[in-house]
Amino acid sequence: MRLPGSTMLAPMLDGLADTPEPPYWAVIFTSLRAPEDGDGYGTLSNRMVELARQQPGFLGVESARGADGVGITVSYWASEDAIRNWKKNSEHLVAQRKGREGLYAGWWNRIGKVERAYSFELCSSH
Amino acid sequence: MRLPGSTMLAPMLDGLADTPEPPYWAVIFTSLRAPEDGDGYGTLSNRMVELARQQPGFLGVESARGADGVGITVSYWASEDAIRNWKKNSEHLVAQRKGREGLYAGWWNRIGKVERAYSFELCSSH
Repeated sequence: MRLPGSTMLAPMLDGLADTPEPPYWAVIFTSLRAPEDGDGYGTLSNRMVELARQQPGFLGVESARGADGVGITVSYWASEDAIRNWKKNSEHLVAQRKGREGLYAGWWNRIGKVERAYSFELCSSH
Repeated sequence: MRLPGSTMLAPMLDGLADTPEPPYWAVIFTSLRAPEDGDGYGTLSNRMVELARQQPGFLGVESARGADGVGITVSYWASEDAIRNWKKNSEHLVAQRKGREGLYAGWWNRIGKVERAYSFELCSSH
């Protein structure tokens, strides 16, 4: 559901995903970067996102990493099958293996079904 | 589900939420900070998280904001009722109203049910 009075543009603001009406699926990947990692995270993360964009059923992605090393990437998908197909992608599996070898101090991967969604966009005329 | 071979500590690594076995609920708040905002976001965001922590059914929270102004905060909840009670909290409503008055250039609030979860934590002895 979009809030009354909000104005949606297409595409949405840079960095926010212009997802369709629910239901759809979300993969929430939260991680804590290993202190010794240099540019490894950025390269790997970008690659995973690029792989996601190539998959059928991909709806969008949002990503943020703070100075404290905590990072969150949420990708949105039309179906569970689309997520499974993404996971089958060999380069993604490589990325996961690398993740277990020291790029991250820890991570969670949570998969859920988005039931409701609300958005707001500041009108440029305000 | 936790991965074979992974070692879970309690509490989990700073910044990652030690959530229980699914199913549970997630509120995914993604936002783009307004360019003119100073410290307003940090204060408001911290307050919203503190309010969440006081609610029954709160399971944890993870948050990150990058230098590009994109921020993601995911809070985890035992039930939809717990989320509704959080939303009823008056201070949270105030925060939402402030958010519509220029603190954010735009935001999404997505509510979903986490069906599966996997975690990894680097063993400190490695």
